[in-house]
Amino acid sequence: MELLIPIKRMGRDSKEDALHEDPMEVFMAPESVAVIGVTRKTGAGSFNVIENMRQFGYEGKIFPVNPFANEIAGLPAYKNVQEIPDPVALAIVATPREQVPGVIEECAALGIRGAIVVPQGFSDADEKGRALQEQLTEIARKTGIRILGPNTLGVYDAFSGFTSSFMPLERTPVPVGVICQSGIFFVGASLFTGRMGKGIDVANACDLDFAEALAHLMEDERIRVIFAHVEGTSRAASLYETARRAAARKPVIAMKTARSGWGVRAASSHSGSLVGDHEVFETAFRQAGVVCAKDPEEALDYTKTFLHLPPMKGNRVAVITFTGAGGIILVDAFEENGLTLAPLSEETLQIARGLSPDWMPIGNPMDIWPAVMKNGMDRVYRAALEAVLQDDHVDGVVCIAIAPHLPGEAYLDASEVIQETAAAYPHKPVALWFYGPNQPEIMDRVERQGTAVAYPTLPRAARALAALYRRYLFFQETRTIPSSRDASSQAQEILTRALHRGEGRLDEDSAEALLGLYGIATAKTRFASTIEEALRKAEEVGYPVALKVSSPKISHKTEAGGVLLDVAGPEALEAGCEAITRALSHLHGKTDEAGFLIQEMVSGGVEVILGGKRDPQFGPVLVFGQGGIYTEVWRDVARGIAPLALEDARRMIRETRFSRILEGVRGERAYDFDVLCDSLLGLSRLMIDLPLVREVDLNPFKVFEHGGKTVDVRILVGPEVS
Amino acid sequence: MELLIPIKRMGRDSKEDALHEDPMEVFMAPESVAVIGVTRKTGAGSFNVIENMRQFGYEGKIFPVNPFANEIAGLPAYKNVQEIPDPVALAIVATPREQVPGVIEECAALGIRGAIVVPQGFSDADEKGRALQEQLTEIARKTGIRILGPNTLGVYDAFSGFTSSFMPLERTPVPVGVICQSGIFFVGASLFTGRMGKGIDVANACDLDFAEALAHLMEDERIRVIFAHVEGTSRAASLYETARRAAARKPVIAMKTARSGWGVRAASSHSGSLVGDHEVFETAFRQAGVVCAKDPEEALDYTKTFLHLPPMKGNRVAVITFTGAGGIILVDAFEENGLTLAPLSEETLQIARGLSPDWMPIGNPMDIWPAVMKNGMDRVYRAALEAVLQDDHVDGVVCIAIAPHLPGEAYLDASEVIQETAAAYPHKPVALWFYGPNQPEIMDRVERQGTAVAYPTLPRAARALAALYRRYLFFQETRTIPSSRDASSQAQEILTRALHRGEGRLDEDSAEALLGLYGIATAKTRFASTIEEALRKAEEVGYPVALKVSSPKISHKTEAGGVLLDVAGPEALEAGCEAITRALSHLHGKTDEAGFLIQEMVSGGVEVILGGKRDPQFGPVLVFGQGGIYTEVWRDVARGIAPLALEDARRMIRETRFSRILEGVRGERAYDFDVLCDSLLGLSRLMIDLPLVREVDLNPFKVFEHGGKTVDVRILVGPEVS
Repeated sequence: MELLIPIKRMGRDSKEDALHEDPMEVFMAPESVAVIGVTRKTGAGSFNVIENMRQFGYEGKIFPVNPFANEIAGLPAYKNVQEIPDPVALAIVATPREQVPGVIEECAALGIRGAIVVPQGFSDADEKGRALQEQLTEIARKTGIRILGPNTLGVYDAFSGFTSSFMPLERTPVPVGVICQSGIFFVGASLFTGRMGKGIDVANACDLDFAEALAHLMEDERIRVIFAHVEGTSRAASLYETARRAAARKPVIAMKTARSGWGVRAASSHSGSLVGDHEVFETAFRQAGVVCAKDPEEALDYTKTFLHLPPMKGNRVAVITFTGAGGIILVDAFEENGLTLAPLSEETLQIARGLSPDWMPIGNPMDIWPAVMKNGMDRVYRAALEAVLQDDHVDGVVCIAIAPHLPGEAYLDASEVIQETAAAYPHKPVALWFYGPNQPEIMDRVERQGTAVAYPTLPRAARALAALYRRYLFFQETRTIPSSRDASSQAQEILTRALHRGEGRLDEDSAEALLGLYGIATAKTRFASTIEEALRKAEEVGYPVALKVSSPKISHKTEAGGVLLDVAGPEALEAGCEAITRALSHLHGKTDEAGFLIQEMVSGGVEVILGGKRDPQFGPVLVFGQGGIYTEVWRDVARGIAPLALEDARRMIRETRFSRILEGVRGERAYDFDVLCDSLLGLSRLMIDLPLVREVDLNPFKVFEHGGKTVDVRILVGPEVS
Repeated sequence: MELLIPIKRMGRDSKEDALHEDPMEVFMAPESVAVIGVTRKTGAGSFNVIENMRQFGYEGKIFPVNPFANEIAGLPAYKNVQEIPDPVALAIVATPREQVPGVIEECAALGIRGAIVVPQGFSDADEKGRALQEQLTEIARKTGIRILGPNTLGVYDAFSGFTSSFMPLERTPVPVGVICQSGIFFVGASLFTGRMGKGIDVANACDLDFAEALAHLMEDERIRVIFAHVEGTSRAASLYETARRAAARKPVIAMKTARSGWGVRAASSHSGSLVGDHEVFETAFRQAGVVCAKDPEEALDYTKTFLHLPPMKGNRVAVITFTGAGGIILVDAFEENGLTLAPLSEETLQIARGLSPDWMPIGNPMDIWPAVMKNGMDRVYRAALEAVLQDDHVDGVVCIAIAPHLPGEAYLDASEVIQETAAAYPHKPVALWFYGPNQPEIMDRVERQGTAVAYPTLPRAARALAALYRRYLFFQETRTIPSSRDASSQAQEILTRALHRGEGRLDEDSAEALLGLYGIATAKTRFASTIEEALRKAEEVGYPVALKVSSPKISHKTEAGGVLLDVAGPEALEAGCEAITRALSHLHGKTDEAGFLIQEMVSGGVEVILGGKRDPQFGPVLVFGQGGIYTEVWRDVARGIAPLALEDARRMIRETRFSRILEGVRGERAYDFDVLCDSLLGLSRLMIDLPLVREVDLNPFKVFEHGGKTVDVRILVGPEVS
């Protein structure tokens, strides 16, 4: 997988950039643009960027560059960029790929600050393309010119009136910013974000990447919601940091693609970026407060939701409906999304009862159809919606109504009265679902008004309200990352000694000492290479002991027949050592590298796994989950990016199904939650403090009613591989 | 929960009905209709059924019945139904609810064959409403008149031109049949099934129910796809049987709502039907070959898919795309839906390479954008699509293209060439996704042509193709239900003896014998009420033994400290019995009802649960899953409706995550799959043969490399409760 060689980054600190200078500015609103390699053709099907730009409304200076033309789209054409008599702020490069590095160097020499490289055929294509892209990265690093692309539609700014797209796009100055790695998010914006006010296609990202694009949209006050399509990035850590800051200022919605094994391969051949493990991306986004969308419809719904609806400050939702069946579909979706039916106040119920026939049971969902038949659409809907919006037990509302043909069936239309009423109570979110033959027109009318939001289906309405509530909850939490115990100098010594001895895996004593420095308890364990030594060590540990094989060739001791529990005394120990030796020689041919572990016997408790690995993209990642020998089968694990806050550790534990066992099921006692949080936080600090630690696996870590300790430790150490 | 009292059904056998007489016929195409209680108002907002009927195109005779009118909508009105001079085939009843039973009795007396009861306020409302509905059920049973409703829009038949809906509906004679329990599926058909040619709203189902509606649509050759919205039914077994027959003849799509705890409550108050456990419904549908849709968008997609696309005979899909990013989104969705990228033949690849620039890597997904830029839209798309449709390695195709504004950007439109090409190869399904500003118009054009199907998003396209493939696979299987071993007379004796002794739970000997008759092995187990007896029984069983408490008060032996394993001899057994007695007296105060189980020691193996319960709706339901004390936490179980076919048993086992462990993970041996299938089939026969068996729990059932046996049995017996 040669594609996965990290692309070397420039020395700049992107955080500093964002504060002091915005490298995207010249891309979004350039005073003048050279279009290098622009086609001479114009008109339908020509994909002429200059024509497109002018149709879009760009008013700056445009300099066509094409050695085979004197004039393009009515503008004088230049043979090369040096010929252009005026200053050029931005270059759009559309030459054959071989010429691109030379052209960019010329631009840089002339002081042009930015270049958009449109063509395909770089890291998305063959070996030669990858080499060409590496040249571009190097030119950017050396000269300071900033490059967007290759393989990009470039930028779209409906406010400044500039776009570099060769595909025709409408200009819609709406407060939605889009970052993507493909032109489909510009051309198909209606399907992903509804509309788009600013767009940045980072594509192959040879230089400018998500961090710069996010920082730009974060700073622009006209943008209220940011959507990011992410296939992969070679700068995941800066994406995470910028996303964290951006999400705290405005809603950021991310759709990560290239999730599957195949997807990863396809992504490599498409945008040439480094694709990380999907679960790590999702963990990072969620920990950063980013709203994750798993498909285009979620992205579309969330964009509308965060654009138009106020925060939902609780999960109690009232439902006003014309149809019991609709209420039922919605309530199924509430349960799946962690929402709950608001317990309506008696006043609210009385209002609805007063309008309904006597036999009609009134509750939540509140079925007002009989009331409407008796008292008319407008009167009933207004009264019911006002009542639930005023009700202190209600955090949000879903309204179900009909979408009739207009104007013929206007007597069935409740959309106006709902909008008016919702507008009078702007502090609670109102989600709508219209069923009937005319849903698109009614939804458009609602969208234009922008007070309530209509969704195509009820499950999508429920999902959107749940996302609104989760964002509110996330930013209500005070997140504290516990300060370090300053264990790092002692820990460093342990590692240095181990590495000095040439070990890739810490021995038991070192591992126990290292974990101890970070507050993680280990069952007392000693290594013995002979039976005689085993007998001595067992006296130190104290009987009964557990006897385990220790061999670099055996990663799963239990299955290999290499574990004996509850060894009561020296005789049983000796017999056990001999049995294991026989089992080993049978399994592995020779046993000279192997030995024995003598461990204090740890009974009871339940088994979890605590782990840490160094992700090539995001750095240290922590893992918590069900432990034992079938961990990989259950995959009942949660992840977190270091440094963990206490809240992250808690969330990780609660995310697993196993947490139900920790809470105590079937009348069992509960297990010690705090020791797990503390150990996870300790592991997080350890991974941050000690870059030499590659990987830690504590499996099983046994947790009891009070306390917990690990009975199997695997710590891999070694210098950073890059 | 008084609502859950089963509604008594008529003695008729609905299967016979379907063969000999179709009770729905008179509802769908009546020669004459009396509309009893019709409003005098007409025009917009009057909800006048007669006006609606005539607008819809009904050409039979209509008789308004309203004691306060002489004429309604230009027709002479009658004071009551007796006054009508001509024969009446069908009555639509829209009177106040109290009058409905009387009116129906009058109708029945006059020989009217069917009645649609429109009003709300029956089992969907209060105590009085429930009593009124029970009267209706009784009238139908006594008189033979068939009743649809109450609380229904009734029927919709675009072919015959008849509807009883008081809401305005368009007439679209398309081959889609809809069965529902709410009018939203008529009014909002565009959102659930796209269009609708026939519709039956069974609503509260006091008489006619899913079985009759399904049988009707199954027999109508003009209907090619059936969609059913199911909240609940009091006749689940007949629904299952009819669905099985219908699904074998044409695609049946079901959306089960009222899934959640709340939903169940809401459903009770809406349609008054009995709501079963959602998982059992889903199991039954899948086992019947019904396509399950979990939300409205799935229902919509599947309806279009099965209406227009041919079967997909494998899971290898080719993707033709303008955009790498789109291919990636799709490939993620393939993996989630069990589809795979077709390995394109060299000929196919050569055709695409010949049209593309040299640097463009060609594979699957096949990105043809560079080829389109070089050689033009129509030529490239036709050649690529023809190539993959002719390729023997391809079972289906997804095409990605742009949805441009028309006619202005027609040079970007590939929809026509795709349709033409797909139409030339009608034996492979072609799914489409169009991205761009004009998706609705392009999708409409495609829909009208009806050869390929366009989906709003790529994940939905993938999901639909997967459903197409699953239906093909399901009906490829030969399903065989093994014949019984004729164990039932001996088994019956065992049960009769136990019931005679007044036992609700079979003792160990009886259970072992009973299971043995159905080929299920049990670890040898003896009950002892005293320590002396325990010592004797242990000699019979043979040491080492497992010693377990046996007490009606203790359902979880392990947690209560009531299990001792590997008891080596009489001394250890005596000590163990004493320890358990102490533990019990400590936990439960008195131990006189308790005793001991002495069981042969069964070591090794993995623990599964095999179970059977008698569902109040569907009858015997089998369960397989991960066993042990945390079964309820993992909920890693699959279900099946008895009688199981061998294929069902296999499917149940494979559906669980635990099946990975059975297959052998981490180099472990595989466990005996056949003994599990056999035991499940045995349990299925047992539940069918013996209605007195209420519930069976074999947990844990231990399965080994060869063979398996249960080490804990719980068989509850008793007469049927209804």
